[in-house]
Amino acid sequence: MNEPARHPFTRRDFLRTTAIAGGAAGLVGVPSLSPLCGADAVDIKQGTVILFQGDSITDAGRDRKAKDPNNFAALGRGYPLWIAGALLADHPGADLKVYSRGISGNKVPDLAARWQEDAIALKPDVLSILIGVNDIWHKLNGRYEGTVEDYETGYRELLERTLKELPGVRLVICEPFVLRCGAVNERWFPEFDQRRAVAKKLADELKLLFVPFQAMFDTATQKAPPAYWAADGVHPTIAGHALMAKTWREVVGI
Amino acid sequence: MNEPARHPFTRRDFLRTTAIAGGAAGLVGVPSLSPLCGADAVDIKQGTVILFQGDSITDAGRDRKAKDPNNFAALGRGYPLWIAGALLADHPGADLKVYSRGISGNKVPDLAARWQEDAIALKPDVLSILIGVNDIWHKLNGRYEGTVEDYETGYRELLERTLKELPGVRLVICEPFVLRCGAVNERWFPEFDQRRAVAKKLADELKLLFVPFQAMFDTATQKAPPAYWAADGVHPTIAGHALMAKTWREVVGI
Repeated sequence: MNEPARHPFTRRDFLRTTAIAGGAAGLVGVPSLSPLCGADAVDIKQGTVILFQGDSITDAGRDRKAKDPNNFAALGRGYPLWIAGALLADHPGADLKVYSRGISGNKVPDLAARWQEDAIALKPDVLSILIGVNDIWHKLNGRYEGTVEDYETGYRELLERTLKELPGVRLVICEPFVLRCGAVNERWFPEFDQRRAVAKKLADELKLLFVPFQAMFDTATQKAPPAYWAADGVHPTIAGHALMAKTWREVVGI
Repeated sequence: MNEPARHPFTRRDFLRTTAIAGGAAGLVGVPSLSPLCGADAVDIKQGTVILFQGDSITDAGRDRKAKDPNNFAALGRGYPLWIAGALLADHPGADLKVYSRGISGNKVPDLAARWQEDAIALKPDVLSILIGVNDIWHKLNGRYEGTVEDYETGYRELLERTLKELPGVRLVICEPFVLRCGAVNERWFPEFDQRRAVAKKLADELKLLFVPFQAMFDTATQKAPPAYWAADGVHPTIAGHALMAKTWREVVGI
């Protein structure tokens, strides 16, 4: 993980050029706010397996009985579908397999409970995780008691277990995000920001790719109101999912 | 429609650079086979309304009770969803409205019968039409008797009616396509190619944008087998829909 970047276009380049393009063309891009965490971009190789894990944002209406990769029903209609489509269209000879196993309502302990079957057993080469919003939302609703420390401990255990069981895996930590509208009010803060910081800290410590979705949406709300990107403040609209897919691909480099 | 191109990046440039990029990077692109038909790329303006019309390929599992624009349920999970997402993410301040009114099984006369309600009344600025595969498929199945001439006459009437009722509309003719697998066999030819030629002829005569999906898929099958792009030869896979969206955007220029 510490070897020099093998790609001519690095994440450092991405963050720089995205900021430039965003300024010049008025496009929404990721600001160059996020410190680099030292992880190289991902390579697509023959037979690469990509897995999206998370909660309802990743689930995005998928049919949980549909287990096959590259399958409309199995991928739902959110950012995993957009990313899958783009990758499958751009790499037609690569025998890619793209899975989603997001489940609505999941928190870190829910992922941990189904991790062997729904992550390790699929032997992903790239494993993207977006988790954290329910860890606070369900707490605010009185349905869960986990603290920020529990989130950090549980998430770190999950990541370390994954790196141990799948030594070659490229983990992608997606930053949990909210938009200030709908179900999201002042009660979420500052705890939500503390949980976001945990995700970033873990990515930095373990030298994992980190997709700064909160920074992306914060920039996006300078162009259109929060509800344009996520009507209830949590679940992205079509525009929100498409923007997530674009940013994910840019950060991950595929 | 005959004024010089107002865009620095024209369709002529697109066809040239796509061919170059496809060669250099190994990406699937549209070959520069298609004669230009003289229509400029489209502008996105404040409040632009975009409508996708067609059959099951455009329908793509949408909820036909969902009538709102920019809505997951209303847009299904095919190329209209991908295009909508990309446009809504890239033009957050433009108040775009993207609709789909594709209906599975439709042929030209089916579009004509619901055109007032499902096209004219929505007052689209951009109206994209993909129609023709059922006009032959249902004939092969003995459920329809329309000839190639009927397709041409009916399609021309529909387009001329649209241009008369919506004088400023930008019509986008999507080439009907099939892949040689699944339900598609030799019985489809040469009639299917004749119907494709009708769509191109109408686009040329009326100076409309034309998206060469057949040429695109023919190029794509040099990289992966037909079923990779459309398992039954008619309905695109995730890879197929994503590629359609990419090509549509490049040709239409938005």
